[in-house]
Amino acid sequence: MNGKIIDLTLDIYDGAPVMPGDPPCQVASFSTLETAGFNLAQLSLSTHQGTHLDAPFHIFADGAAVDRLDLDRCIGPAFKIDLRPKKPREAIDLEDLLPYDDRIRPGARIILQTGWDKFRAGSDYFTSHPYLTGRLADWLADRQIGLLGLDMPSPAAEGWRQIHEKLLARDIVIVEGLANLDQITAAEFTLIALPLKIRKQDGSPVRAVAIEP
Amino acid sequence: MNGKIIDLTLDIYDGAPVMPGDPPCQVASFSTLETAGFNLAQLSLSTHQGTHLDAPFHIFADGAAVDRLDLDRCIGPAFKIDLRPKKPREAIDLEDLLPYDDRIRPGARIILQTGWDKFRAGSDYFTSHPYLTGRLADWLADRQIGLLGLDMPSPAAEGWRQIHEKLLARDIVIVEGLANLDQITAAEFTLIALPLKIRKQDGSPVRAVAIEP
Repeated sequence: MNGKIIDLTLDIYDGAPVMPGDPPCQVASFSTLETAGFNLAQLSLSTHQGTHLDAPFHIFADGAAVDRLDLDRCIGPAFKIDLRPKKPREAIDLEDLLPYDDRIRPGARIILQTGWDKFRAGSDYFTSHPYLTGRLADWLADRQIGLLGLDMPSPAAEGWRQIHEKLLARDIVIVEGLANLDQITAAEFTLIALPLKIRKQDGSPVRAVAIEP
Repeated sequence: MNGKIIDLTLDIYDGAPVMPGDPPCQVASFSTLETAGFNLAQLSLSTHQGTHLDAPFHIFADGAAVDRLDLDRCIGPAFKIDLRPKKPREAIDLEDLLPYDDRIRPGARIILQTGWDKFRAGSDYFTSHPYLTGRLADWLADRQIGLLGLDMPSPAAEGWRQIHEKLLARDIVIVEGLANLDQITAAEFTLIALPLKIRKQDGSPVRAVAIEP
């Protein structure tokens, strides 16, 4: 593919930060050049580790799982909305997105940039990030966008369930924990954020990239 | 992205087949709608589970790891070569690829179709597949192709190390365990096979897709 690839993904490594209560992220060498003639590692991690996506089954028993997700939603034209500066625990509300009203259309892939990925090492990364209001989530759901990408670990720390419900009820793919959004300068780019094909499960870590024209 | 997306990926599931000696593939429910209000799973698997790619660090101590891999190799125009029928343990040699000589150029992404993915459930899936000869691997290495995709779990069951060395020494990305190649009908398509961003490791499961024009 022509274009410049920008990696939007947080590293997976042994001891990488996890949402409180989630399984730990473990990466261990299993075979080495010395012991086996090749390097091979064993991973243990949750379906929501680092940069990942949520499928409707995350919240709905009858929702699509990542092995049945419509992959068209996970590949295609996207744009970002720069919301910086947003403070910790500051609301992202309808007024923030109204200037982009004409681009927020059915199937649109929209990435919200708050700069929060820079705080990944901090103790409040999972608890104090900016958050989407229910009003905004309703509006995005009504617009039937295809994908919502965030550089926060969740659309909301408190009230997360309500926000997830509103979006996933409309099969909007939620990509959480994006990074390096400041490297995107193009007004439109191709986003790729494909889940692993994990049978009947709720989410997956992804290698998310933007390809600029 | 315009085009038809074809999923080229084997399922990840609890107890999925693994190369003999590799870590097991385990998928377990960790949180459920009943216990936590959301579904979330815990994965334990090797960097070479199912459909995956090998980075040079798999064989070379100073080779590129998946977090530093040139992602341009993993996204872009590709074509497949239909080698069917190939029998178990049958060689894939230079003569098989010579008819495609003019397309096997520096940076090319080439997928070899043998139909072997249909035997994934069999006890000899990992041991009796068709294999690349050293002569063919040398030729592909000299051509400096960018990526080699296979529907076998390895380019060779015996002599695997030699074949991996020849290819990975030239930074040729090897994608193993592809599936559903019979669904590809276009002469050229866009291949996406991106590794997770696992810090300093040797390979990664991928969600591999072809996008037909």
